[in-house]
Amino acid sequence: MKLSEGVEAAVHSVTILATLGPGETMPAAAFADAYEISASYLLKHLKALVADGLLESVSGPQGGYRLARAAEKITLLDVVLAIEGRRPAFRCTEIRQRGSVRLPAEVYAKPCGINAAMLKAERAYRAALAETSIADIAADFSAEADPRAVAAACAFAQQNKRPQGRSKIPPAEGEKA
Amino acid sequence: MKLSEGVEAAVHSVTILATLGPGETMPAAAFADAYEISASYLLKHLKALVADGLLESVSGPQGGYRLARAAEKITLLDVVLAIEGRRPAFRCTEIRQRGSVRLPAEVYAKPCGINAAMLKAERAYRAALAETSIADIAADFSAEADPRAVAAACAFAQQNKRPQGRSKIPPAEGEKA
Repeated sequence: MKLSEGVEAAVHSVTILATLGPGETMPAAAFADAYEISASYLLKHLKALVADGLLESVSGPQGGYRLARAAEKITLLDVVLAIEGRRPAFRCTEIRQRGSVRLPAEVYAKPCGINAAMLKAERAYRAALAETSIADIAADFSAEADPRAVAAACAFAQQNKRPQGRSKIPPAEGEKA
Repeated sequence: MKLSEGVEAAVHSVTILATLGPGETMPAAAFADAYEISASYLLKHLKALVADGLLESVSGPQGGYRLARAAEKITLLDVVLAIEGRRPAFRCTEIRQRGSVRLPAEVYAKPCGINAAMLKAERAYRAALAETSIADIAADFSAEADPRAVAAACAFAQQNKRPQGRSKIPPAEGEKA
């Protein structure tokens, strides 16, 4: 079982967007540069986040992406489902109804117990993902990460947000000016 | 996120093996016929279950597969990990350390909070899978499934187990004699 790498890039991107002020956006190219991933690959995932109502895309010279709702109301589950889709990881193909042991369809009216047990576990996974919001992730990062990483992330946001010039926070040591 | 189809076939196969008596085995071909899947595909998964110590493979004319331990001690998690491997679904590639915002390695000594939150959810998933044993699945099937399906599964086991001839349970209606 494997989540797409897009999930990692998407959660990081949404978390950075959570640090922007009202009306501010950030272009996809900034994230692609920060993560050293292809802009077109990232764009695909940002579009999926827009399609699911987590982000808004703003066009024009001041354009880019911003959160479509408060970071408190965007959970890890929202991001995972936007990127991976809503189908469960376990996809019952009803093999009980195939091959030599097949009986009339009405015999299988009740869901397969194996499918039910697998889906129950998946509900536990999704519930756990839903417990953590992007606001939680951002707050934990500010409180727990190395102060140099926090300063660098802050400087990155200041340098790449649009419109520019609203803040005078200097770039962190070791960061591009 | 998607589990391989092998998980479905593996859980069904292990559940059928749980109905066999001591010393009895069932050949892979019987499962492949029952599920209408390729024998080589199924064999790959049965071998993974053997490699993880869930099944034993017995060679010779009376050979086939049997549980390597009691069905009460084989969980859905055991089967999923045997088929899918032990790596978490979320694979942190440390994108925080890549690209333009990269700082010295010691800044990233603490695990990324996003990775930690994703792994916490995965632990919840695995804990839920570990709560259900193959014995539970088999017992639920006997108690809850349509009696015709239960009879057919029982007849299938009787017809395909090795050595043959220990039981005289007739095939169920609609089943191959």
